[in-house]
Amino acid sequence: MEDVVIRTVETPKVTLRDPILVEGLPGVGNVGKLAADYLKDQLPAKPLATIYSKFFPPQVYVSEEGVIRLVSNDLYYWKSPTQAARDILVLGGDYQGISPEGQYEITERVLDYCHARGVREVFTLAGFAQGRVVEEPRVLGAATNAERVAEMKKFGVVFSRNDPGGGLIGASGLFLGLGRLFDMEGVCLMGETSGYFVDPRSAEAVLEVLCKILRIEIDFSALKAKAQEIDRIAQKIHEAEQRSGEAAPASERPRDDLGYIG
Amino acid sequence: MEDVVIRTVETPKVTLRDPILVEGLPGVGNVGKLAADYLKDQLPAKPLATIYSKFFPPQVYVSEEGVIRLVSNDLYYWKSPTQAARDILVLGGDYQGISPEGQYEITERVLDYCHARGVREVFTLAGFAQGRVVEEPRVLGAATNAERVAEMKKFGVVFSRNDPGGGLIGASGLFLGLGRLFDMEGVCLMGETSGYFVDPRSAEAVLEVLCKILRIEIDFSALKAKAQEIDRIAQKIHEAEQRSGEAAPASERPRDDLGYIG
Amino acid sequence: MEDVVIRTVETPKVTLRDPILVEGLPGVGNVGKLAADYLKDQLPAKPLATIYSKFFPPQVYVSEEGVIRLVSNDLYYWKSPTQAARDILVLGGDYQGISPEGQYEITERVLDYCHARGVREVFTLAGFAQGRVVEEPRVLGAATNAERVAEMKKFGVVFSRNDPGGGLIGASGLFLGLGRLFDMEGVCLMGETSGYFVDPRSAEAVLEVLCKILRIEIDFSALKAKAQEIDRIAQKIHEAEQRSGEAAPASERPRDDLGYIG
Amino acid sequence: MEDVVIRTVETPKVTLRDPILVEGLPGVGNVGKLAADYLKDQLPAKPLATIYSKFFPPQVYVSEEGVIRLVSNDLYYWKSPTQAARDILVLGGDYQGISPEGQYEITERVLDYCHARGVREVFTLAGFAQGRVVEEPRVLGAATNAERVAEMKKFGVVFSRNDPGGGLIGASGLFLGLGRLFDMEGVCLMGETSGYFVDPRSAEAVLEVLCKILRIEIDFSALKAKAQEIDRIAQKIHEAEQRSGEAAPASERPRDDLGYIG
Repeated sequence: MEDVVIRTVETPKVTLRDPILVEGLPGVGNVGKLAADYLKDQLPAKPLATIYSKFFPPQVYVSEEGVIRLVSNDLYYWKSPTQAARDILVLGGDYQGISPEGQYEITERVLDYCHARGVREVFTLAGFAQGRVVEEPRVLGAATNAERVAEMKKFGVVFSRNDPGGGLIGASGLFLGLGRLFDMEGVCLMGETSGYFVDPRSAEAVLEVLCKILRIEIDFSALKAKAQEIDRIAQKIHEAEQRSGEAAPASERPRDDLGYIG
Repeated sequence: MEDVVIRTVETPKVTLRDPILVEGLPGVGNVGKLAADYLKDQLPAKPLATIYSKFFPPQVYVSEEGVIRLVSNDLYYWKSPTQAARDILVLGGDYQGISPEGQYEITERVLDYCHARGVREVFTLAGFAQGRVVEEPRVLGAATNAERVAEMKKFGVVFSRNDPGGGLIGASGLFLGLGRLFDMEGVCLMGETSGYFVDPRSAEAVLEVLCKILRIEIDFSALKAKAQEIDRIAQKIHEAEQRSGEAAPASERPRDDLGYIG
Repeated sequence: MEDVVIRTVETPKVTLRDPILVEGLPGVGNVGKLAADYLKDQLPAKPLATIYSKFFPPQVYVSEEGVIRLVSNDLYYWKSPTQAARDILVLGGDYQGISPEGQYEITERVLDYCHARGVREVFTLAGFAQGRVVEEPRVLGAATNAERVAEMKKFGVVFSRNDPGGGLIGASGLFLGLGRLFDMEGVCLMGETSGYFVDPRSAEAVLEVLCKILRIEIDFSALKAKAQEIDRIAQKIHEAEQRSGEAAPASERPRDDLGYIG
Repeated sequence: MEDVVIRTVETPKVTLRDPILVEGLPGVGNVGKLAADYLKDQLPAKPLATIYSKFFPPQVYVSEEGVIRLVSNDLYYWKSPTQAARDILVLGGDYQGISPEGQYEITERVLDYCHARGVREVFTLAGFAQGRVVEEPRVLGAATNAERVAEMKKFGVVFSRNDPGGGLIGASGLFLGLGRLFDMEGVCLMGETSGYFVDPRSAEAVLEVLCKILRIEIDFSALKAKAQEIDRIAQKIHEAEQRSGEAAPASERPRDDLGYIG
């Protein structure tokens, strides 16, 4: 079979105006995926194409109704209501490619598909693991060129000399790196996160910056509620531990610097 | 070499009438393979094609007579004796593809081959590991669409909200998931099983449901005998353990909830 | 690059008369490789082709003179001096393919090359690990068809109902299994061996049977000398251990049933 | 995507005069990479082509300014100022291919590209791990043919009967081994090194020999300074350990024979 199979699910007539690709796949703290999925729901964006690949796990998900769905990545499109503004493609999905080779193959095919649709600009969303609790997550950045870096700084994006030290591994970096071979420019926005939990608060921080950059407005209340719910759960676990005097064995507890949560 | 090599072993004149594909390959409790092999023997179905692949292990089996056979998957066909009824293809074999990529490649090629033969409907047979002894195995289901789910419920197939939680991994899921890309509909029938033993009783439960759905009748006595034989062996092990007072070290014993067997 | 690169090193005019392929690559006790290399040297056979592949390790060997050589498999040919007899191809080499997929690719390409040269019959040589010292190694067999099995029994080849139980894994099985897809017949000859040491005695047993089958005569004295040398080394280690009273830590010693050697 | 993507970054008019390829990629003691990078800077050589591949990690590096760059190998060219002398290509990079198959694919593509540019001679630079501190690193050699070996000996290159015993694994060997399939001749120069540290002193030894062979002169002062700096760091660690009486746990310390450093 083809390494990557892209099935366009839209009616063939959709034309996009200078579209921007926003990528958010599973990764550190699931920050990128949370942000991209939330953006897609709030715009709301409509299905454009489904991406299957032999570089994903050989797996189907089963819905609560018992209906199966092959694991995939998915592209959604949003037509800007104002003539002057640009359209948006959102890429989300179940998995990143499960081998280095698969990462390259899938990213290249999706970029090729998007390039044919007119995409010349990419924003990738990700989490940046700090290894400690982050109460007010900053948004770190990396970009394809110096002009972009300067521009991003105006939006409060932090460019740190040493972070990320080892570079970016996975889809968020690769969409920018391979994107340059398609003459695309782009930015990676990384929300600080502990790295131990799914982190909707970090996703919110990333998305707030992105919306300012793209000059779109979305309702953040559902994402804020999700963040508060996770806080409540963490608080309960914390209290239960305190009551029981002796907490769970150390090996099962989060690290000490996560004390207020775990 | 080609990733997947399919050798048709029939005389070229076999034409199939609206055939249904039934898949059962090695997996949890070997339920799917036991069921498919038994169905093939009882119909009986004749050899249609042999599937070789570099995604199987580089291995040959040696018969008791000393004759080798390269590991493979195998398709058998059964012509319905009544004009009104549909023909059946049964897929069994030694292995599933041994890498995620191989799973996709083999499944896609077999589906392509079957599609060219007229297959539009697939039943995949599998075991569902409960992690505990299952005395009266239910048959759980998953399907490609809601109509199928409703139809299956009439045959006693159980669609559980939470099972299987993580979806289906391997051939039984993939034949349905990729099958949709060939416009095939289908159902996965999963027999409950402990997950620790080969389980002919679960295979029987799956096959009884399948036969009702396909409106075919087969003799279950040999499969029932096999299930009883396994029960007898388990009972003997259990008694031997009791006599020896102290059984094997815990690490070598089945879990506690398998007590009556182990 | 091509998965497998075959460079013919002979002058192009060599034509072979109904040639037989004899394969012996590294494996259990190195029996197959020892036998094939020895046969090649004794016939003597001349270089026919070198096989390179990305499925071998990315490695070169360096000769004592400092000259490098990329790891490979190698085909040698021997023209029978009598008009009535058949020519022989010998396949030896540094490695088997290092992945299952690589095993298939390399075997298929070599078979394809040999088929084009007229090969319709294959003998594969291997060791059969018994997990205990074998003083008088028998030669076990497996073949592509029942006639071959009957024929081999006349030469003293043992066809055991239960050995090899799990079939043959690797080149020796695959050359027969894939060979059938090229309409080749063949036999695997397996010399019994402990599985813990390089075993020239087992290689000799295999080669003696093969020479009878192929009706060729070679001088076995060098191979016998090699076997005796290994016996002497083993004996010295044994004596040294006895003198020191307490031998090496158990983890470093061969198993107990190898006591007379280790 | 293509397995290996080579983007020529020069203006298309560069023609090379009988160019020699010098390869130095990350490996033992990083000797090869240090030497190649230093040579490139000192000549100085200009960018010729960038090599991307799905056999590298899916990773981008981020500069101190926040600008990303996809991991790659890189070819630089140097035009000799004297009409009589030969031009040089230098290959450096972030990684070797991360799988055996990838090593072959990348090496073959780069050789093919260089062959088309007129390269018929290759020097590969590497470290040779001695497992002990090496105060005066010798330069060991291996070559594609006996004439080269003889020639290299005149430059003080050591050809040791037993080193490297297991041959060369990775790019430095493969560029020579596959190079022969392109009718290229070549030499591998290996600087002795402990194998535990990045070793600029060994890189210097290798580079001094190479410069004599290629009859080029470069300034070694920056490389010498780097070697001294590493010595100073090692010395400080050593003194700190002595003061604290009991050093770090054994598992964290270099081996005993590195005592004067660690």
